[in-house]
Amino acid sequence: MNAADVATEVIALERAALDRWGQGDPVGYVELFDEDVTYFDPFQERRLGGQETTALMHSVTGQIRVDRYDMQGATVQCFGDVALLSFNLVSYRTDGGRERAISSWNSTEVYRRTPQGWRIFHSHWSFVRPEVKDANPEAA
Amino acid sequence: MNAADVATEVIALERAALDRWGQGDPVGYVELFDEDVTYFDPFQERRLGGQETTALMHSVTGQIRVDRYDMQGATVQCFGDVALLSFNLVSYRTDGGRERAISSWNSTEVYRRTPQGWRIFHSHWSFVRPEVKDANPEAA
Repeated sequence: MNAADVATEVIALERAALDRWGQGDPVGYVELFDEDVTYFDPFQERRLGGQETTALMHSVTGQIRVDRYDMQGATVQCFGDVALLSFNLVSYRTDGGRERAISSWNSTEVYRRTPQGWRIFHSHWSFVRPEVKDANPEAA
Repeated sequence: MNAADVATEVIALERAALDRWGQGDPVGYVELFDEDVTYFDPFQERRLGGQETTALMHSVTGQIRVDRYDMQGATVQCFGDVALLSFNLVSYRTDGGRERAISSWNSTEVYRRTPQGWRIFHSHWSFVRPEVKDANPEAA
């Protein structure tokens, strides 16, 4: 399988999981997670491990609604059995016939090839330019 | 080289780059970046590519000051020639004899083994629990 085929497959897996996520079904992601997945999102106080991530996913079942998303700049970097997918994601919702952007994400999904197929062993979700008190808190 | 040795080496490389970063010298990271590194931080509007990342690093030379940092929960996941380091990072500064935390990060650094040594091919920095308007903007 060449790099272009890997990219196509991994992006298709991610889109299928995102489609289910937007409909309130996080199990699409649960099915992709490695047992030992490591996970960051902007709502947690620290990195989560595998069982914590799975529990978090199940806890939001039915509580998410994304009507459309735009995966921007999807890039897959392949080395051996690892395929790192990164992209920016804009999520939209339509209410009363009017569509609006509800969130913008920096997204890192790191897949590895297993006998059962591609699995995510690290996931990092963060907001694009969240509002923060200081422009750069580490500025001298 | 076994997984424990890889973890020790990669964490040492990251700490050396962080040490220089805190002293206003981002070139420690530049020297670790793959030519085609992909990069996220909370200040950019989208993912950056290799040349953009290098330019960004050079642009903050002398503008960062971190007096101490605490790398928490550092974990290295190794598959073939890829080593994914993730951790939470708290940065501190001491002014007037008083130390305070200035930033808390979710950090993903994805290294690959090259003939020249370990290089970062993807980097994702985000704030731990940034203040956002909605608790979860995608909540149904």
